[in-house]
Amino acid sequence: MDHAATTPVRPEVARAMLPYFSERFGNPSSLYSLAREAEEAVEEARGRVAAAIGANPEEVFFTSGGTEADNWAIKGAAAASRKKGDHIVTSAIEHHAVLHTCRSLEKQGYRVTYLPVDEFGRVEPGSVEEAITDATILVSVMAANNEIGTIQPIRAIAEVAHDHKIPFHTDAVQAIGAFPVDVDEMGADLLALSAHKFGGPKGTGALYIRKRTHIGTFMDGGAQERGKRAGTENVPGIVGLGRAIELAVAGMPRNAPRLAAMRDRLIRGILDAIPDTRLNGHPTERLANNVNVAFRYVEGESILLMLDALGVAASTGSACTSASLEPSHVLTSCGLAPEHAHGSLRLTLGYANTEEDVDYVLEVLPGIIERLRAISPLRGEA
Amino acid sequence: MDHAATTPVRPEVARAMLPYFSERFGNPSSLYSLAREAEEAVEEARGRVAAAIGANPEEVFFTSGGTEADNWAIKGAAAASRKKGDHIVTSAIEHHAVLHTCRSLEKQGYRVTYLPVDEFGRVEPGSVEEAITDATILVSVMAANNEIGTIQPIRAIAEVAHDHKIPFHTDAVQAIGAFPVDVDEMGADLLALSAHKFGGPKGTGALYIRKRTHIGTFMDGGAQERGKRAGTENVPGIVGLGRAIELAVAGMPRNAPRLAAMRDRLIRGILDAIPDTRLNGHPTERLANNVNVAFRYVEGESILLMLDALGVAASTGSACTSASLEPSHVLTSCGLAPEHAHGSLRLTLGYANTEEDVDYVLEVLPGIIERLRAISPLRGEA
Repeated sequence: MDHAATTPVRPEVARAMLPYFSERFGNPSSLYSLAREAEEAVEEARGRVAAAIGANPEEVFFTSGGTEADNWAIKGAAAASRKKGDHIVTSAIEHHAVLHTCRSLEKQGYRVTYLPVDEFGRVEPGSVEEAITDATILVSVMAANNEIGTIQPIRAIAEVAHDHKIPFHTDAVQAIGAFPVDVDEMGADLLALSAHKFGGPKGTGALYIRKRTHIGTFMDGGAQERGKRAGTENVPGIVGLGRAIELAVAGMPRNAPRLAAMRDRLIRGILDAIPDTRLNGHPTERLANNVNVAFRYVEGESILLMLDALGVAASTGSACTSASLEPSHVLTSCGLAPEHAHGSLRLTLGYANTEEDVDYVLEVLPGIIERLRAISPLRGEA
Repeated sequence: MDHAATTPVRPEVARAMLPYFSERFGNPSSLYSLAREAEEAVEEARGRVAAAIGANPEEVFFTSGGTEADNWAIKGAAAASRKKGDHIVTSAIEHHAVLHTCRSLEKQGYRVTYLPVDEFGRVEPGSVEEAITDATILVSVMAANNEIGTIQPIRAIAEVAHDHKIPFHTDAVQAIGAFPVDVDEMGADLLALSAHKFGGPKGTGALYIRKRTHIGTFMDGGAQERGKRAGTENVPGIVGLGRAIELAVAGMPRNAPRLAAMRDRLIRGILDAIPDTRLNGHPTERLANNVNVAFRYVEGESILLMLDALGVAASTGSACTSASLEPSHVLTSCGLAPEHAHGSLRLTLGYANTEEDVDYVLEVLPGIIERLRAISPLRGEA
C-alpha cells in the first residue's frame, strides 16, 4: 500500500525491455543496423509517451527520472530567461525535486515565492496572480501532491501564468495513470513524469517541453535528444517507460474508479473505527489511490514498523524524505501542528491491490493505533 | 567492433538485475522490509564499485551515466569554489560531456583553458602547470580518449594540480575494464564512469568523490545518496553496474592482453594492406581495444555503410557526435587536416570478439577502401 513511493515493473513492461539489454543493445547514435533498431525503439517509446499526454513526439525528452525532469525544467527555464527576470513562483507543498531546486537557484541569486495552500493543500489561483511580478520567469505547481494526494486547479493556475506570458511547469509525477493528463487541457508548457510511479522502471522519466518554450540544457555533452539532453539513451528504460505509460493510461478508466472506491472505504473505515483521527488533504479533489490520515498521540514511524511486521508496506509521507526527522513540509503547510504531522500515515493503492487488502488494513490498524497510544508519552501530555 | 560506443549487458549482469524490476522492487528510501532489500542491494553494489577503483564505498555516488557524472563533477566543483576562483583547465580532446559542460560554464562567466595535445593526443603535464593560475579551481583530463584510445599521463597531471592544491577530475569512462584504475594511484579526486561501456546497463554510472572534495549538488531533491544526488535510485541499474564492474575488473588480466594482440594484428594488417593510411592516436600508450586509422581520399561514413552491409559494426569516432558533419575535434586537435579526419575509422574490440572477427575485417576492409577510392572525387584533387 505504498504505490506512491514506487511500483513493481509490470510483467508486460519487463518483457518489452528485456531484448534491449543484451540482443538489441546498440547505441542509438551509432550508424549501423544494430543501432537503428535501438533508435527506432526509442522513437516508438517517444510516440507512446506523447500520445499518453496529448503532446507531439518532438516535445518529449527522456530523462533519468522525475527528479531530473524537474531540475531541468526549473533550472533550464531560469537559465534561459535570466536576462528577462529572476523570479519564480511555486507552492510550499511541492516535492523536494522542485523545492530544493528552487533553493539551489536562490543561492545563485534568483528569488522564489512559495505560495501557501489552504487546509486541504490547494493552491488558490488568485494567489498566483498576486505573486507574479515583472521579473517572474516561471510558475511551477504540481499536478497532484505525493503525500496528501490533493489535486491542484492546474488549468486555472496555468491561465494566470499565460495571461502574463509566463511559462508554466507542472510536476505530474503522481498524476500519470491516476487521472487524464493532457498538456493542452492543463495548459502545461513543461511537465515532468517518472516511469517507476506507474509500472515502469526506476531511472527513467521524461520532460515535456512545449514547442517554443525557452529552456536551456541541464545535461551537457553529446547530441542526443536533438541536442537538448546529452548522454547515451537508456534504451531498455525508455522502452519500458513507453510501454508502461500506454498500459497505465489504457487501464485508467477501469482502475481509477475501483481504486477510488477502495480509497473511500479505507478512509471511512479508519475514521469510523479510530478516534482522534483526521483526513489529510482534500476530501474530493484527491488522487484516486491516496489515503493520508493523522492519528493524534502516535508516531508515524511506529505505525509503519508494526504494519511492516504484519506484511503491510506503507509510508508516513514521501519516501524521498523518510530519512529526515523533520515533520512533513506538506502537512505543516496545510496547518497541521508538528505533533499531528508526526502521527500521519499514507496508504497509496495500486492496480494489484484487492478488497481483501483493504479489509486486512481495516482489521489490523485500529489495534496498532490502540497499542501505540497505550504506551504513548504524547497521550499523557494531552 | 564498436565496443567503445556501447556493449551488450553480460548475461550474468542481466540475471543479477532481473529480480529488482518486479519482485524486489522497493524504493530504498522507504521504511519496510521490501525497501531494505533494495537498499541493501544498492549498498552491495556501491561496495563492488568502490573495490574496483580502490575507493571507500562512501566516496561512490550513483548517477544516470558518465555524462551526468562529468556534468556533476565539473559544475559541482565550479559552484562550490566560485568564491575561490573561476578558471578550469581541461584538454581539447575531452569527450563532449566534459567539453560542452565547460562551454556551458563559460556562458556563466567561468574561464576555461583547453590544453593542446601532441600528434598522438597526449597532454603534456608541463602544459597543465603553465595553464594554472591563482583562479584555477579544477583540472579535468580524461584517463583515456574515446576516439583514438590515447592514455593520458594522469598521475603526473594530478600531481601538478595537487601541487597547487587544485582538485583533479578524470573522465574514466573508457578506462574501466581496459586497464587498472585506482583512484589513489591516479591521484583522482573526482572520477566518472559509465556501466554500459563495460557490460553493464545503459542509464547507470557513478561519480567517485574523494572525501573532503568541495563539490555542490547537481541533481537537487530528495535525500538519496546521502543528500548529494537526489532521485529514486535506479536499483536494477545499480545492481547491474556493481556486477559488471566486478566482472570487467576480474577479467582484465585475461582480456586486456588478448585484445591488445588482436588490436595490434588489426593495425599492422590494415597499415600493411592499404596504402595512404595512418594510425591515429599513440602507438603504444593506447587502450588495449582501440584501433583508429585514417584513410586518405575516402569518407568515414561510406566505410561504415559498407562494413555494416557486411555485418561489421564500426564507428568514425564517437557515437555521441555521429549526427554531426563536423570533423572530429579529437583528430583535428592531433593535427590531422579535416580531409584526413573525415576518412577515419574506429574499431573497438570487446571480450566477445574473436580472431576470426579480426581475420574477417582484414579480409573485407582493403576491398572497401579500394572501391571507395575508385569513385572518390577527393582522389582526383590529389
